[in-house]
Amino acid sequence: MNNATSSLNVAVKGTGVVPGVAFAPAVWVRPRPALPDAGAPVAEDAREAEFARFTEAADAVAQRLAERAENADGHAAEVLTATVGMVRDRGWRKTVRKNVNTGQRAEYAVVGATDKFVTMFEAAGGLMAERTTDLKDVRDRVIAQLQGTEEPGLPSVDRPSILFADDLAPADTADLNTDIFVALVTELGGPTSHTAIIARQLGVPCIVAAGNGLRDIPADRPVLVDGAAGAIVTEVDENVANELVKESQERAARIAAWQGPAQTSDGHRVQLLANVADPKAARAAATTQAEGVGLYRTEMSYLSTSSEPSVEEQAKLYGEVFAAFGDSKVVVRTLDAGSDKPIAYATFEDEENPALGVRGVRIARDNEGLLTRQLDAVAQAAGERAEGATTWVMAPMVATADEAKWFAGLCAERSLTAGAMIEVPAAALLAEEIMPHLDFVSIGTNDLTQYTMAADRLSPQLAYLTDPWQPAVLRLIDMTCRAGQRHEVPVGVCGEAAADPLLACVLTGMGVNSLSAAANALAGVGAQLAEVSLETCRAMAQAALAATSAEDARRAVSAVLD
Amino acid sequence: MNNATSSLNVAVKGTGVVPGVAFAPAVWVRPRPALPDAGAPVAEDAREAEFARFTEAADAVAQRLAERAENADGHAAEVLTATVGMVRDRGWRKTVRKNVNTGQRAEYAVVGATDKFVTMFEAAGGLMAERTTDLKDVRDRVIAQLQGTEEPGLPSVDRPSILFADDLAPADTADLNTDIFVALVTELGGPTSHTAIIARQLGVPCIVAAGNGLRDIPADRPVLVDGAAGAIVTEVDENVANELVKESQERAARIAAWQGPAQTSDGHRVQLLANVADPKAARAAATTQAEGVGLYRTEMSYLSTSSEPSVEEQAKLYGEVFAAFGDSKVVVRTLDAGSDKPIAYATFEDEENPALGVRGVRIARDNEGLLTRQLDAVAQAAGERAEGATTWVMAPMVATADEAKWFAGLCAERSLTAGAMIEVPAAALLAEEIMPHLDFVSIGTNDLTQYTMAADRLSPQLAYLTDPWQPAVLRLIDMTCRAGQRHEVPVGVCGEAAADPLLACVLTGMGVNSLSAAANALAGVGAQLAEVSLETCRAMAQAALAATSAEDARRAVSAVLD
Repeated sequence: MNNATSSLNVAVKGTGVVPGVAFAPAVWVRPRPALPDAGAPVAEDAREAEFARFTEAADAVAQRLAERAENADGHAAEVLTATVGMVRDRGWRKTVRKNVNTGQRAEYAVVGATDKFVTMFEAAGGLMAERTTDLKDVRDRVIAQLQGTEEPGLPSVDRPSILFADDLAPADTADLNTDIFVALVTELGGPTSHTAIIARQLGVPCIVAAGNGLRDIPADRPVLVDGAAGAIVTEVDENVANELVKESQERAARIAAWQGPAQTSDGHRVQLLANVADPKAARAAATTQAEGVGLYRTEMSYLSTSSEPSVEEQAKLYGEVFAAFGDSKVVVRTLDAGSDKPIAYATFEDEENPALGVRGVRIARDNEGLLTRQLDAVAQAAGERAEGATTWVMAPMVATADEAKWFAGLCAERSLTAGAMIEVPAAALLAEEIMPHLDFVSIGTNDLTQYTMAADRLSPQLAYLTDPWQPAVLRLIDMTCRAGQRHEVPVGVCGEAAADPLLACVLTGMGVNSLSAAANALAGVGAQLAEVSLETCRAMAQAALAATSAEDARRAVSAVLD
Repeated sequence: MNNATSSLNVAVKGTGVVPGVAFAPAVWVRPRPALPDAGAPVAEDAREAEFARFTEAADAVAQRLAERAENADGHAAEVLTATVGMVRDRGWRKTVRKNVNTGQRAEYAVVGATDKFVTMFEAAGGLMAERTTDLKDVRDRVIAQLQGTEEPGLPSVDRPSILFADDLAPADTADLNTDIFVALVTELGGPTSHTAIIARQLGVPCIVAAGNGLRDIPADRPVLVDGAAGAIVTEVDENVANELVKESQERAARIAAWQGPAQTSDGHRVQLLANVADPKAARAAATTQAEGVGLYRTEMSYLSTSSEPSVEEQAKLYGEVFAAFGDSKVVVRTLDAGSDKPIAYATFEDEENPALGVRGVRIARDNEGLLTRQLDAVAQAAGERAEGATTWVMAPMVATADEAKWFAGLCAERSLTAGAMIEVPAAALLAEEIMPHLDFVSIGTNDLTQYTMAADRLSPQLAYLTDPWQPAVLRLIDMTCRAGQRHEVPVGVCGEAAADPLLACVLTGMGVNSLSAAANALAGVGAQLAEVSLETCRAMAQAALAATSAEDARRAVSAVLD
């Protein structure tokens, strides 16, 4: 069922990131303007007028975005308002003015000013660096306005369409109307790109990294998009397509109607938990079917301060997350910083390969206090929870039995329930030796896939490798599950794999006890589990483990259901 | 036997990179001068004299290095001459002059000029970037000369000593007298650092990454260094120490006397092959016990040109390597470029995690011609070898069965014997599925360890993880060997692991057929294999596979021999 299009002739293949089937004509996002070159200098007496031309264009862009912000609400309004703030930014406008004063044309002055800020933001790293997409988007909108061409971004269409784009900017997706844009397909991006995250939030079928051949599909041609399979089909009978869309809608309806807690059709329970990063997200997750938190990422509490937060500050924040879930389970992951997520006072700088560097629990080898103070804070906050409340704590990037033992020892001193992420291949390979030290483990499929395939999870060129359906990854998960069963240590999964309904069945069949994902993905997983027996899950696991490629695995597992 | 010090009280632990036991007083390398700060400006009329002061100092340093170059030969003379060239470099001196002309003191002017060149070299990347160590060394020597302090580098001693250093510069090690400096210990560096490479060439016992506690060892205290175990022992009975040194020397004598081809004491043959990167190295390897080339790295032929070398140019170069080994086996690895080894016309730039990026055979997915032209060149050069000559070709970074199949298909079109490096964990996990497509495989233990442990092989902080004795790595090697036996596909090992005599026994016990390493490491491996039976090798493999840590594995394997 997750491979609606498996028997059809697929024209373009990408990475499916949000399941669902749609059938509608394709429309391309409006192109970004070509960046202008310097051209002839503006005469000195015309520069004032040239800057006025810029101001007028920028104000017009800001005005349009502000109107959209007014008509939007919640997160969309926030994103659009932030973008308006950039167009109105005094520093940026001042730099444009300076450039124009040297004789640059307004369009070119905008390019230069934006480059300057992009460089600054990138140097600042972290959250600032993420805003460069926005900045470039603002640049393109203003240049288009100056050139009198259509503003880049969403085209105006009034009938259901499938949106094709190179990539989408936050301002494009902020107030996306999913009645009009019934599916998204981008040439760039990966499962964690901005477009993928937004599509997941909106629940609109989405395929990313569909680079090869997308531009060959004629505009207005009705295409079938299968978000689970990552497939785009152009030659398809209309009746067949409509039937597939209908099935997909029925599935969506089943998901909407699904009530937790999750179990297979024969009553085998699987805990569905949410991934959160702050109290706000925890409170939002608590309104969904999530039975608790399976992955509380604590980096936020460190990223927002210039020096290490005190034990009390940390405990207060953790307490807020705990409060959202009463006495339910909350699994806290200790700081996973590193030079990919730099924290000035804790991490090494400038590693050649940050993902292979001093990150996760490794930081604490030379700075044990950083970890023990965090554990003190977790223990303090946990101590204030209701009696019987479940608080677990786990270390990221554990690679050896020695590291697991050391971490468990520090937890034992604070009467904390200790676990480890299984995300380094060595940890899965040594699961038999690691388990005896721990109370639980949680498999982080994103990093486990990245390392097992030796492929950066953010690289669009390598998306074909960074797929949790890769048999090598599935075998490591299976090894971990078998060790967990032998040692009676519960095994959870957090990461993209837990959000994939079909893969969730496979994981359940392997013996995974809990699945943690974005809260809004849980109902899809729960509804799928409700339709299969544990026996079927086991057969699906066997089929996946016997496969020789990710595609084979998907196909073989679907075949078990057919 | 490789753990001479296992029963002793180890004071400092590092990463052993060249085996051998030494017992002598410790001496520290002469410290580098503290970098001067700006200080008061030099009056305008004194600047000419200030620059003359610099010239005189630089000339004195150049003179001393040139004298050393004259008394050295071969590679040492080359390295020293290159360093002299840097001290005499007109661009560098000009920059110092410019700085002095602005009123800077000579010492400070040297710092600024050097920084400028270091930045330039680093921006240029590749081989240029590697020269920055030399540049900083030159800077320090000149500053010491200006300050009238002792030139940094090797101290003058006239009795056997163990050299302690933070790290060693090429000019320090170029003409190192191994009768005086009987062992090297550095606080920094890893198994592939400059010091490690030189020590391996010189055959002098060496430990790197011995950061913790080395400075606490009193100068002139006789210490015992065990290069195999990476152990430094301070409290040791002199008789015991001398006995251990004697044993080590006897072992060295056995190695010197050893004659190939390699086999266990009961006659089980293991092919010993050399890793080479160019015809010169191949000719040098041909004078050793190497039976052929197990890893011919072909990157050099691409790195030295600004556009892709023609098929004929490549074939000519490959032919020169083949010529060094008559009709013996030569295993050619196809281009393993990537943003860690950038080649302007072939690779992606600026990947966040180069080691996890588009490297190895992945580059050819979007640029198949780059690979097929190389295979054409290999086929052409192989066609000119004597009848019956063995030419194998293998792809780096194969991660899936599909990639192995595709590569083998391209080789089959050219009647080439096709193999793959097993260096991505997924390839070892999927060995059963990959083998049927291939004629042979070669396990690259350096990268396999890096990915399995998710730890950068060049990070000194993570040297405790990037150890091929890690049980997780050994288990992947074992999986590969078992799949090789089932499918009758020969399994070789190239990488540091193949150069470790004890580990070579373990690998042989697992069923590895050939070991490829630096040519001068082969006799040590061969001599060790000659002392054990295949049955013992198998017992050693079992002991290693049952271990729960790298240390356990070493200990358990040594215990089998005792």
